[in-house]
Amino acid sequence: MQSKFQQLKARLLEANDISSAAGLLYWDQSTYMPPGGAAARARQSATLRRLAHEKFTDPEIGRLLDSLQPYEKSLGYDSDDASLLRVARRGYERATKIPAKFMAEVTNHTSESYQVWTEARPANDFERVRPYLEKTLAYSRQAADFFPGYEHIADPLIESSDYGMKATDVRNVFAELRQELVPIVSAVTSQALADDSCLHQHFPEEKQLAFGLEVAQKFGYDLNRGRQDKTHHPFMTKFSLGDVRITTRTKENFLGDALFSTLHETGHALYEQGIRMDLEGTPLAGGTSSGVHESQSRLWENIVGRSRGFWEHFYPQLQAVFPEQLGSVPLDAFHRAINKVERSLIRTNADEVTYNLHVMLRFDFELALLEGNLEIRDLPDAWRERFEADFGIVPPDNKDGVLQDVHWYFGLIGGSFQGYTLGNILGAQFFSAAREAHPEIPSEIENGEFSTLHDWLRGNLYQHGSKYTAPEIVQRATGSPLSIEPYMAYLRTKYSELYDLGN
Amino acid sequence: MQSKFQQLKARLLEANDISSAAGLLYWDQSTYMPPGGAAARARQSATLRRLAHEKFTDPEIGRLLDSLQPYEKSLGYDSDDASLLRVARRGYERATKIPAKFMAEVTNHTSESYQVWTEARPANDFERVRPYLEKTLAYSRQAADFFPGYEHIADPLIESSDYGMKATDVRNVFAELRQELVPIVSAVTSQALADDSCLHQHFPEEKQLAFGLEVAQKFGYDLNRGRQDKTHHPFMTKFSLGDVRITTRTKENFLGDALFSTLHETGHALYEQGIRMDLEGTPLAGGTSSGVHESQSRLWENIVGRSRGFWEHFYPQLQAVFPEQLGSVPLDAFHRAINKVERSLIRTNADEVTYNLHVMLRFDFELALLEGNLEIRDLPDAWRERFEADFGIVPPDNKDGVLQDVHWYFGLIGGSFQGYTLGNILGAQFFSAAREAHPEIPSEIENGEFSTLHDWLRGNLYQHGSKYTAPEIVQRATGSPLSIEPYMAYLRTKYSELYDLGN
Repeated sequence: MQSKFQQLKARLLEANDISSAAGLLYWDQSTYMPPGGAAARARQSATLRRLAHEKFTDPEIGRLLDSLQPYEKSLGYDSDDASLLRVARRGYERATKIPAKFMAEVTNHTSESYQVWTEARPANDFERVRPYLEKTLAYSRQAADFFPGYEHIADPLIESSDYGMKATDVRNVFAELRQELVPIVSAVTSQALADDSCLHQHFPEEKQLAFGLEVAQKFGYDLNRGRQDKTHHPFMTKFSLGDVRITTRTKENFLGDALFSTLHETGHALYEQGIRMDLEGTPLAGGTSSGVHESQSRLWENIVGRSRGFWEHFYPQLQAVFPEQLGSVPLDAFHRAINKVERSLIRTNADEVTYNLHVMLRFDFELALLEGNLEIRDLPDAWRERFEADFGIVPPDNKDGVLQDVHWYFGLIGGSFQGYTLGNILGAQFFSAAREAHPEIPSEIENGEFSTLHDWLRGNLYQHGSKYTAPEIVQRATGSPLSIEPYMAYLRTKYSELYDLGN
Repeated sequence: MQSKFQQLKARLLEANDISSAAGLLYWDQSTYMPPGGAAARARQSATLRRLAHEKFTDPEIGRLLDSLQPYEKSLGYDSDDASLLRVARRGYERATKIPAKFMAEVTNHTSESYQVWTEARPANDFERVRPYLEKTLAYSRQAADFFPGYEHIADPLIESSDYGMKATDVRNVFAELRQELVPIVSAVTSQALADDSCLHQHFPEEKQLAFGLEVAQKFGYDLNRGRQDKTHHPFMTKFSLGDVRITTRTKENFLGDALFSTLHETGHALYEQGIRMDLEGTPLAGGTSSGVHESQSRLWENIVGRSRGFWEHFYPQLQAVFPEQLGSVPLDAFHRAINKVERSLIRTNADEVTYNLHVMLRFDFELALLEGNLEIRDLPDAWRERFEADFGIVPPDNKDGVLQDVHWYFGLIGGSFQGYTLGNILGAQFFSAAREAHPEIPSEIENGEFSTLHDWLRGNLYQHGSKYTAPEIVQRATGSPLSIEPYMAYLRTKYSELYDLGN
């Protein structure tokens, strides 16, 4: 058995190494690659992705997994080996159910669709992408149909990023959240807008980057196993547990962009850096779901990074870095500015209160499209109507409406958005559990200390990688299943100090 | 036939793409990778190298090459398709003659040997590396024996980097060169040392890098298809014809290091960037031999970059960048400083006159070791004796003697060094041919113009990639076979202006 288990691990490691190399190709493309490298890079990335898929779906892996079933059963659920086999099998079954030929077709189609979208969006031209979206929707349905027996057609798509959640689970949580959230959004957005002009000044790039990285290190981001580089679209990427990188974009005329996106990506990176080193190269060495991953970016960016306590410590330092810009701006004003809530058109720029409404809109549309209850051609109108209902404003064009997010133009429809709001909810739930275990955490944050929080997260969440599913790890770490209560309590407490919530 | 040819090209492209990805892994490791990434990176690189080798030596490639022989014969030698088949077959035969198992053994051994060397060199401890070197020598002989029928046992090793040259060819050229060179070295080194103190001042890194890159671009290095990054050991690397990068190391207390290594790597990069774009991804899209590649780094670094004419244009600019350091140093003094000739211990720091004696010493030892006429245990003494005979000084220790170069400790013995001196010779031969065709080249250089020279090199050498062997391209481009005459003429003219050569 040990020999078969080692054979399996070696094969999985090979696939993992090729994927990691593909990851580096992408990182390089987004940071340093000269423009002339683009054509060959696209080809090279496709080659590596295909090879990694071939290696991971090699029938020999299936045979090894089969013959290791008795071994797995002989071990406890919590055993590393059993977990590795469980997670590898889940991945293998998923990867082999979708035929490689279909995958290749989808990849070709979405590459083309993405290209068209990059031109159609600035031109505000939904009609150009419509036929592509229609084909994407057809592919998305086909993809789901490779997993017969689903309860809702979106389930297989949701499970690919949030394993353990079904459409109906998400729908229920979102409905509950929506009910609580809408009155808060109404209350807040009916009041005067916070003044965030202090953030809209000139902030030299180098200083922004240095300050963000300083805070990231204070959070616990280990530069011996990571680094920060500039990019157009910030992301976190991992080539091994010893090499977990973040990228950041700066706007010299807006302080809020680089700073909070750095803290956001740092949250993702802390999760990956916190995984037990002995899981390196195995299928367990990664975050367990998109929602749980997002919970960590949100926790560090918002719950910590936009809190009053955090800035009590860091604001004097930020003022020292930008004395001309912030020297005469009081902490209260700054704190209000970085927590400005407003009805805005663009999801990625939205504040943490309204953000979820953007996500729910998209999630509901994904379900409706997959169900056949909404046609692609009706999407722009549906978007406008729903947006007006939720936000009280109508997007003036499709560019900042249905064309704004890359997701549907570069991938399948279904399962792409729910993770963001699940992350908001779970971030608060994890933080609340940590604070319950260690009531000193808030005062430590006020002193710029994060080790108790970081240690709790590492011990209860990070170290396990994807050994446990999202529902399992939430239960283990917080003692209860996913719940919106901690998140709502967090929002109510925080925003009642900043706005009149009318209760 | 066309379908088989396309199949072959697709398979070769796949192997090429994997190799290019491995190249990026190495570039990243040498420039930006955090230290924690090292262990996994070594594993990932090995995986990709192995995969590339597996793909390139797939028996199906052999079958396709066989069945395409009639097609190749139906085409002229100069046809791109025929050339691709010729070069691919040469590579395939070479790669398949050496068993993968043997390769893996050698790679393991040299990795270990390299590790030991990194400690043994600073400790001046030849005895520690001796058993490794002995094993390396045994492997080197075995490697040669996979190519039965050689004239000299070093031939198969030399052919791996300088196809078309045999030990006896190199020996003859080197003997001829030696005879001419030794009197010049004696004459020059018996005179007072040039004063290069102007180079040993404080030169801030950023300015050095910017100036070097400025000159590189003037030479014709295209930053749309390239970039410069910092590293410990400068190198040029190519991921595609659209992405050819250089790396540079700076010493803030010595101007000569970054500047000339940048020009050196730029020479390599100009060669690769100059290859016809329609050869991208094929076995023809690379320099044809180590000697020809080196000819371009030497041509741009030394023949152009250390010439009086070049600095007539660029020295005022350099003075403007470093007014405090160079403002009062006359051009003549600077030119003498960058062309200082001296008996020195270290090959990589040697000037262009003595450099070749360093190379010949190593080349002769490689042959003697492979022939069995020199034992590893006698190498340190042999080194000291030969060094004293050639340079008139005795290395005080093995650290700066036989332990100085990484080559034998990280690879096979044989074929590692001749390319450097072949490059010096060929650089002058190509330059001389270009100047004969365009007598205006020297005066253009004095005006900071390089396009005539660059165009000639591109038209006669670069564009062909490895379509022609080194002997073929030398004959085609210069109208004669490899000859030391242009190089000797160049050295005599240049150094008789700087030193009294006694004739």
